[in-house]
Amino acid sequence: MKGNVIVGQSGGPTAVINSSLVGVYKTAKDRGAKKIYGMLHGVQGLLEEKVVDLSEHIRNDLDIELLKRTPSSYLGSCRYKLPNIADGEETYKKIFSILKKLEIEYFFYIGGNDSMDTIKKLSDYAMIRGIDIRFIGVPKTIDNDLAATDHTPGYGSAAKYISSILKEVIRDGLVYDQKNVTIVEIMGRNAGWLAGAAALARCEDCEGPDMIFLPEIDFDIDCFIERVDKIQREKESVVIALSEGIKLPDGRYVCELTDYAQYVDAFGHKLLAGTARFLANKAAKEIGCKTRAIEFSTLQRCASHIVSRVDITEAFQVGGAAVKAAFEGESGKMITLKRLSNDPYQCTTDIYDVHKIANVEKLVPREWINEDGTYVTSDFINYVRPLIQAELTPIMVDGLPRHLYYKEKMK
Amino acid sequence: MKGNVIVGQSGGPTAVINSSLVGVYKTAKDRGAKKIYGMLHGVQGLLEEKVVDLSEHIRNDLDIELLKRTPSSYLGSCRYKLPNIADGEETYKKIFSILKKLEIEYFFYIGGNDSMDTIKKLSDYAMIRGIDIRFIGVPKTIDNDLAATDHTPGYGSAAKYISSILKEVIRDGLVYDQKNVTIVEIMGRNAGWLAGAAALARCEDCEGPDMIFLPEIDFDIDCFIERVDKIQREKESVVIALSEGIKLPDGRYVCELTDYAQYVDAFGHKLLAGTARFLANKAAKEIGCKTRAIEFSTLQRCASHIVSRVDITEAFQVGGAAVKAAFEGESGKMITLKRLSNDPYQCTTDIYDVHKIANVEKLVPREWINEDGTYVTSDFINYVRPLIQAELTPIMVDGLPRHLYYKEKMK
Repeated sequence: MKGNVIVGQSGGPTAVINSSLVGVYKTAKDRGAKKIYGMLHGVQGLLEEKVVDLSEHIRNDLDIELLKRTPSSYLGSCRYKLPNIADGEETYKKIFSILKKLEIEYFFYIGGNDSMDTIKKLSDYAMIRGIDIRFIGVPKTIDNDLAATDHTPGYGSAAKYISSILKEVIRDGLVYDQKNVTIVEIMGRNAGWLAGAAALARCEDCEGPDMIFLPEIDFDIDCFIERVDKIQREKESVVIALSEGIKLPDGRYVCELTDYAQYVDAFGHKLLAGTARFLANKAAKEIGCKTRAIEFSTLQRCASHIVSRVDITEAFQVGGAAVKAAFEGESGKMITLKRLSNDPYQCTTDIYDVHKIANVEKLVPREWINEDGTYVTSDFINYVRPLIQAELTPIMVDGLPRHLYYKEKMK
Repeated sequence: MKGNVIVGQSGGPTAVINSSLVGVYKTAKDRGAKKIYGMLHGVQGLLEEKVVDLSEHIRNDLDIELLKRTPSSYLGSCRYKLPNIADGEETYKKIFSILKKLEIEYFFYIGGNDSMDTIKKLSDYAMIRGIDIRFIGVPKTIDNDLAATDHTPGYGSAAKYISSILKEVIRDGLVYDQKNVTIVEIMGRNAGWLAGAAALARCEDCEGPDMIFLPEIDFDIDCFIERVDKIQREKESVVIALSEGIKLPDGRYVCELTDYAQYVDAFGHKLLAGTARFLANKAAKEIGCKTRAIEFSTLQRCASHIVSRVDITEAFQVGGAAVKAAFEGESGKMITLKRLSNDPYQCTTDIYDVHKIANVEKLVPREWINEDGTYVTSDFINYVRPLIQAELTPIMVDGLPRHLYYKEKMK
């Protein structure tokens, strides 16, 4: 018999984040954990003792299958940054007294950069105070910007969603015998991994997007308009994929030129929206062609109805590997994915010191973007293609995908 | 042996419009048509003799299965309005000389209101001139605004897409422990059938949208903001679905209040876009809550990766029924869908005089919208629910849905 376990989800959701939750839950249960708790809304909820006994919510194998297919963080999430230990001793005391009361021995946190910062600080505090709790991070983010891991669970499904619907959008653009330019806006504040995945739409039955712009490369608006003009003279339907986070040479986001630039979200981040429409309107005015803008929007992180089976399986595996590592005595680590080979694709899990991961942002390497910054290279495509393979069929009930819902949220 | 057949697609595409094309093609072939031609870009292409022999493109049963799953109009579409016969004799002479050259005896046109106007005029002309060609319309439109038919092929799949992704978006809105309002913008210029389908997301595992606004009801912005304010005081995550075509009491579209109001599309229609974002920004300012806007965009008419099997089957059936009717001597008619019962859902095809259909727009009945105009009634939901049932699995190749592509468009 092992001691009690607690697990939380943090940061933005992905289509497969709950598969990692299931991976932690099932592996911990199978390996003899006494109780398995879930924090509601991550550490922020934990601080208010918002904790549930997961066995009351995940009651059987059907629940497990439903949860794997449920988008958004089942337990709720937060964007809570722990204070430095020196400045915020009170917060740590509070967290650890709650963990003590629950008799927690293993602590798992599913998240991205900020969440790994939480694992780092909590494991440091435990070490300093000689508290015997193991802290392991479980990687997750559609942005794929975590260091040390080959890729992050959540990215493959977002890439599959983006490239699948882009194929549909490209075909839609061919419907009329009339020149038209479509600009699609893809998530990604600083890293272009998601926008780059648009290149997957170029395949036997689809020519793919004509250009792709990533935030890693300075964006020149005049040069963009010129390029669009040139392409639309040569072909009827032009499709351009770009990242919401593309920036001007002076460092401003392109979307800061729009009317919505004044809006910031609850975390003080500038609202990145309207880039595609801004550029589509500009192209329409300056080139005189029919344009349209499409934001792929929040569906990129919650389209559970079309996920990658590779991704959802790996999401489960990193959850399971986290439990195994903690039960074997590891702490202050994050599980990583380690690619063994590309063809055939083989990947295993590994473990890495969280201190070297937290707050580091992995961008698309310059050499994976073509020279003029308008497309990704075949190295990029070979990297991402294995991650979108195969499907996990949704469980359809009355015509719609069924989810496992957390009851107290249904009101 | 029957004579030659020609088929075209017109107006906006749907996710299942190619299933109707397959229905025409396969039934005509099975019933002994000599040649089956396709017009590229509808009547507009026909006038330029852009015509293909479909058997060179749909070569086997796998092609048929792929084509059923291919979004956008395979043959290309147009928005071409024929002149009145009295004013445009030349156009008619040209069309009929091309049809004569191709030895066409049966003419099928897959489309909505405008396309039925084409069938009406061509069949009138043939009758006046004593030309022995049969003209039959095959209904199609995601907007569901065609008269005489219980519903239109294309609507069920769009409704399934909208309600499926709305479930995901609603769950996404619950992720943070923070008040937020999401406004989703759904297609529909004058008729609220698509926006109303958002109500399907209210089911056992999802509370559905909090309010739904259709273009059939005048939209009062102040009243809207008040209502949103009231709901967001009572619950954490608020989701509102509205039609892009909602109008102010003075008849202007709400989106005419936005900065994008100046844009018109190639057909002179005002670009309906930005309504959700306009209202989200207004709500953010006036209520002070976190808001976001999501446009469901063109995916509503091209998301072949999640279609309704009921819809795709009926789309095929109306194509087949059109051939049967024409081969039995009918002309100047449109195939309709006739619902026999709701539970169990049973539906058959019928045939209707196209003169009574063309240019008539079917709106959501007032009694299917609640009194204060903020939701649809159970009658509406019972009407639409059978239409989203069951799925047709995409054929996935290398991680992406495979389509049948028309080669000359791939350049």
